[in-house]
Amino acid sequence: MTGTPAPFTADDYTARMRRAARAAGEAGLDGVLIAPGPDLVWLTGYRPPETERLTLLVLRPGEDPALVVPALEAPDAAKAAPMLTLRDWTDGNDPYETAADLLGRAARTAGTARTARTARFGVSDNAWAMHLLGLQNRLPDTAYVSLSESLPMLRAVKDAAELERLAAAGAAADAAYEEIRKVPFAGRRETEVAADLADLLRQSGHSQVDFTIVASGPNGANPHHEADDRVIERGDMVVLDFGGLKHGYGSDTSRTVHVGEPDTEERRVHDTVRAAQEEGFRAVRPGAACQDVDRAARAVITEAGYGEYFIHRTGHGIGVTTHEPPYMVEGEERPLVPGMCFSVEPGIYLPGRFGVRIEDIVTVTEDGGRRLNTTAREMAIVE
Amino acid sequence: MTGTPAPFTADDYTARMRRAARAAGEAGLDGVLIAPGPDLVWLTGYRPPETERLTLLVLRPGEDPALVVPALEAPDAAKAAPMLTLRDWTDGNDPYETAADLLGRAARTAGTARTARTARFGVSDNAWAMHLLGLQNRLPDTAYVSLSESLPMLRAVKDAAELERLAAAGAAADAAYEEIRKVPFAGRRETEVAADLADLLRQSGHSQVDFTIVASGPNGANPHHEADDRVIERGDMVVLDFGGLKHGYGSDTSRTVHVGEPDTEERRVHDTVRAAQEEGFRAVRPGAACQDVDRAARAVITEAGYGEYFIHRTGHGIGVTTHEPPYMVEGEERPLVPGMCFSVEPGIYLPGRFGVRIEDIVTVTEDGGRRLNTTAREMAIVE
Repeated sequence: MTGTPAPFTADDYTARMRRAARAAGEAGLDGVLIAPGPDLVWLTGYRPPETERLTLLVLRPGEDPALVVPALEAPDAAKAAPMLTLRDWTDGNDPYETAADLLGRAARTAGTARTARTARFGVSDNAWAMHLLGLQNRLPDTAYVSLSESLPMLRAVKDAAELERLAAAGAAADAAYEEIRKVPFAGRRETEVAADLADLLRQSGHSQVDFTIVASGPNGANPHHEADDRVIERGDMVVLDFGGLKHGYGSDTSRTVHVGEPDTEERRVHDTVRAAQEEGFRAVRPGAACQDVDRAARAVITEAGYGEYFIHRTGHGIGVTTHEPPYMVEGEERPLVPGMCFSVEPGIYLPGRFGVRIEDIVTVTEDGGRRLNTTAREMAIVE
Repeated sequence: MTGTPAPFTADDYTARMRRAARAAGEAGLDGVLIAPGPDLVWLTGYRPPETERLTLLVLRPGEDPALVVPALEAPDAAKAAPMLTLRDWTDGNDPYETAADLLGRAARTAGTARTARTARFGVSDNAWAMHLLGLQNRLPDTAYVSLSESLPMLRAVKDAAELERLAAAGAAADAAYEEIRKVPFAGRRETEVAADLADLLRQSGHSQVDFTIVASGPNGANPHHEADDRVIERGDMVVLDFGGLKHGYGSDTSRTVHVGEPDTEERRVHDTVRAAQEEGFRAVRPGAACQDVDRAARAVITEAGYGEYFIHRTGHGIGVTTHEPPYMVEGEERPLVPGMCFSVEPGIYLPGRFGVRIEDIVTVTEDGGRRLNTTAREMAIVE
């Protein structure tokens, strides 16, 4: 929590790429195709500019990692990720030919094996459809499957260095929450409080602020309301949900505060969400299914009669992004594994009236779960 | 250029959607599938949060536009784009089933027509591969083609209100260039000058700064170098390339300045690029092919003996993004049409030494081209 963590090294990235290629082989894939974005950052540290030009990391079991890259970005790529073999292509040429050359070898191997079959590649969820279509056209005898389907847990289990960063990001978000409780709420616009929150996140070391939800009164009934020019009033319930990146890893926490004293129903709803969050947290342990966390939290809210007002899943993973697998949602039967990190964030949303959400990031330990957000979950009274 | 332009109305967006659906029909498509990002902003004004949850606008000739949207974002979508029919889906359910329900009808129509055929849909270039794969799996008898292949010119021809915004963004970037020439260069880091540029862009009304390239000395030889901690020295050539969004439309201009007096070769290279930019601009007229602009600029550089050092295409379209069709590149034979807007930005990059790039946004008029950047293209001497 003190100072800047040592940056990941080329060796760290090489180890991750090797692990990904091995996991691909074990999952019956001939390789994985990684697009710019969180997968590429996690595997190589490289963040290319966001453009329509094809940049694609190709990982195949037993082969060196290769990066298809626009020629004019090759110098930056070489500097950012010196461990990669670059295959550059020039404007006016067909980048899919360059990629197909790499994939085609795997495809030919698959096609000539004793039991000939179609080569299958995992592909980053957020790869551009245009690029996927380019590959499908160029190599009709290949099949593709999204990474969230084929290797959903690729980035889900965090190592010690990642956990340290996520804990530091959580502590920084918690520090912002402690301070935001001291600012005036009544009489100010949601956007003003949101700006305060963004400042506090930056002050506590966030390099990037991803969201600062301030949802007061009826706005709180919309889980994805950000902040608008509604003036917060005395008597309002206010959902605060905020996070971003610190040292490249995410924070995300929610608390619901009240301007002045709450009434009986407001208290009952908040107590219900708090109990649901507690039960969701208690369901976290190695071997439990992701959906068990959702079920545990949802049961509390359903029993209290608010089931129809809990209109989203209970949680999502967090790492180099603030939304990634594993998802705590009905139907997700994969087991929790020590090192996974995700949100536990049940809520109740009463249309036209108010909403309540309470959220901590939780990491799976050997014998249960550990919260990375530790501020009080009781309803705070603000001015 | 004065004041804030009137925002686009629901009627404006409805007209754009109708135009897109009609163009899809004319291109032999059964519909187009629009992902969050520039296509969706241009067609509806709606900017959903960036998440893995499926949001998809479905436009079909003769049908009302429908938006597949996560239930918890439906209230925001309804507010931002009241003219859309919403089809919401809830966490834990299959969003592709909701989408397939809309697409399937078109697919069935295609399948039962006198000449049965596969239904074909255009899809936003930047739609997530995960979502495209979800649709392909759910509806195996459909085919998809990227919008840049099937309807590349959908957003390319700007109307009067859009041209007004692009001209205002260009003027704002020009104002930033006039000011940046007055700041000290020698002895300061590239990143410091880049920060000045960003401030100037915001002061001139940019709501978003997309890039502030300050590439001095040998860094200028890398066309995509942004800015690093190199200290600019007397005698350096410095490429400045900057832009962002003002009132939702893009700016993008480049000028190359020199710290103190240039030598003979620096002057020759700059003169060559300036002549190339002029010839590229002169090639702009209705009916010319996009590649003609590239050829005209490239010929000047090749004739001067620097052909191998002009390592990128001559230009790219601009609108609600700073990079979009049409592309001024060899092989792009589509004709220029009045209202198109794009960059004309030849460059020469001498590895290890320096680079020069000169860039204006140009719009096609009835009888030629008009520059939206009008600052002097002579090499400015800075301190």
